[in-house]
Amino acid sequence: MPSIASPAQAAPASRWAPPYLLYLGNAPDHLAAKTARGLAHWRPQWCVGQFRGSDCRTTLDLPDLDFGQAVEAGANTMIVGVANAGGVMDAEAVEHVVQALDAGMNIASGLHERLASHPRIVAAAERNGRFLFDARQPPPLAVGNGRRRAGRRLLAVGTDCSVGKMYTTLAIERELRARGVRADFRATGQTGIFIAGAGVPIDAVVADFISGAAEWISPAREDGGWDLVEGQGSLFHPSYAGVSLGLLHGAQADALVLCHEPGRAHMRGLPHYPVPDLVTCLEANLQAARLTSPEVIAVGVAANTSRAESADAAARICAEIEDALGLPCQDPVRMGVARIADRLQSCFAN
Amino acid sequence: MPSIASPAQAAPASRWAPPYLLYLGNAPDHLAAKTARGLAHWRPQWCVGQFRGSDCRTTLDLPDLDFGQAVEAGANTMIVGVANAGGVMDAEAVEHVVQALDAGMNIASGLHERLASHPRIVAAAERNGRFLFDARQPPPLAVGNGRRRAGRRLLAVGTDCSVGKMYTTLAIERELRARGVRADFRATGQTGIFIAGAGVPIDAVVADFISGAAEWISPAREDGGWDLVEGQGSLFHPSYAGVSLGLLHGAQADALVLCHEPGRAHMRGLPHYPVPDLVTCLEANLQAARLTSPEVIAVGVAANTSRAESADAAARICAEIEDALGLPCQDPVRMGVARIADRLQSCFAN
Repeated sequence: MPSIASPAQAAPASRWAPPYLLYLGNAPDHLAAKTARGLAHWRPQWCVGQFRGSDCRTTLDLPDLDFGQAVEAGANTMIVGVANAGGVMDAEAVEHVVQALDAGMNIASGLHERLASHPRIVAAAERNGRFLFDARQPPPLAVGNGRRRAGRRLLAVGTDCSVGKMYTTLAIERELRARGVRADFRATGQTGIFIAGAGVPIDAVVADFISGAAEWISPAREDGGWDLVEGQGSLFHPSYAGVSLGLLHGAQADALVLCHEPGRAHMRGLPHYPVPDLVTCLEANLQAARLTSPEVIAVGVAANTSRAESADAAARICAEIEDALGLPCQDPVRMGVARIADRLQSCFAN
Repeated sequence: MPSIASPAQAAPASRWAPPYLLYLGNAPDHLAAKTARGLAHWRPQWCVGQFRGSDCRTTLDLPDLDFGQAVEAGANTMIVGVANAGGVMDAEAVEHVVQALDAGMNIASGLHERLASHPRIVAAAERNGRFLFDARQPPPLAVGNGRRRAGRRLLAVGTDCSVGKMYTTLAIERELRARGVRADFRATGQTGIFIAGAGVPIDAVVADFISGAAEWISPAREDGGWDLVEGQGSLFHPSYAGVSLGLLHGAQADALVLCHEPGRAHMRGLPHYPVPDLVTCLEANLQAARLTSPEVIAVGVAANTSRAESADAAARICAEIEDALGLPCQDPVRMGVARIADRLQSCFAN
């Protein structure tokens, strides 16, 4: 079993530790399986297989296993990361979860609907001595206190929602670890929580506890390593900026990486709001972050260039951003994040 | 019965409308009765009396009534605004609530603990056909959409928590109404909710819905009147700034009033954080507010000069702020808010 948690996070993770069976159910398309796909991409060593229903329209290119086969292959926990249109489990999914519990696995879910709201699931967990974990259910939290704490922290911030903040943060974790630097991804959303093996779904906490949640997931650390905190939303998104600001204050970041999708026509879900320009957005994030971390700096820009038609076009986009902001700019998918990591290491050499 | 609610808010208010009996229980001091005190100050015409337990150490200078007397005096609802140290109702308070229901009143509570968590209270409400209302329980909400809506809105923002934002907003409501201007206080905390007869406890909503809650309490209005939105927290408070920013975006304010307590040594509860200077704080609020309300302006500063030793000293403090910011500055308690209202009316004359 991989090492996945800081001391503050070890307890919940121990009840739903990998290896995982990824439950796809009858996911109608790739997007519906987004959580499972993130896990398979970033933690393939934890994923022994997938379970697909008879109407499933997607695959993760993992072995198709039934529940008994999954347990034989070493699965400790089944991850339920897909929902039907209403965000709930249908009768077939409930039946599958009961069968997985009877086969001996714990169950972890990223759905809004709670596992414990199904009496049959609760009964199956009890009779098998297995655990149920709802990633969307926050742990008990305190309000943020803003006190300076030990350790170094990086936070991914964005011009908008869904621009690649989780992917960027995980890419930086991989790059730093490959260089022998201690670095741990700290999750703030349900997909990230399964990948990290711990975390808080920060959009689901009560408003007064946003910054406290960010402090909880990235506690003081004394080993010289980095906590890499998954960002959420954008200070410029009228629906979610409160979450982004509380996260920015609680994360107490030493370094920011700005995530952006060039060419996006407007803020996600809001055709009447333009995407902010990068300089304005970065300056607003730095200004707000200074409240709890006066020396915070930006170390790079992660550009999601998936709309670019060629590698050359993507390179041109990144070069333009780099000139405008004076920071390394890379697309983590096309180019990795080596130059951003270089900048981070040179700025924090001591 | 006074008219208290916008169309969006009429339904909940009708179930716990005034007149009120204010329940003080065994409140050990004035602070413990803060919610009841706010109601008695701002809506004396709604308050027929107070009920005090045998160990009560405070009074609102209202008639002491038992539950039967309160009903005879016209009370429709008993307001439970005090708690013991644990924030919960003790056995005596539960018994009193049951007696009040049996006497024929509805019950509204501002406590964290839910009325409905006590089976005896639920049973008493059912057998008497009375309603229970927990002001700390948010209504179902949507995420904010940021769309420009009709009507004019003013929001009180602050350098810190507990600097007088509710008091200031209510003073502006009173002043504008005295001038024949349509103006309605929109509540975002439990005391304000009882005063307004409607509202959302914005610190208790799930983080993703902060701006949506602010949009809900101040919907589009076409009558030329003002919605005066109660502010919460401060953009410069590391514990709660996320709430303040979501409220700022959702309120879509045309006008801001900055609330401040001169002489406060540090941010509330955080000795390691200084209070921001007024110019920086106001500019940060205006900058953030422009996302959803590009033409927003500041119309005044409300200074809580309760620490000043004399009226002259208070006047000097306000004059200094006025010079520094170029905005009218008044202490709403000592001086009223006439000059702030003058500025508001002159800036929005059409």
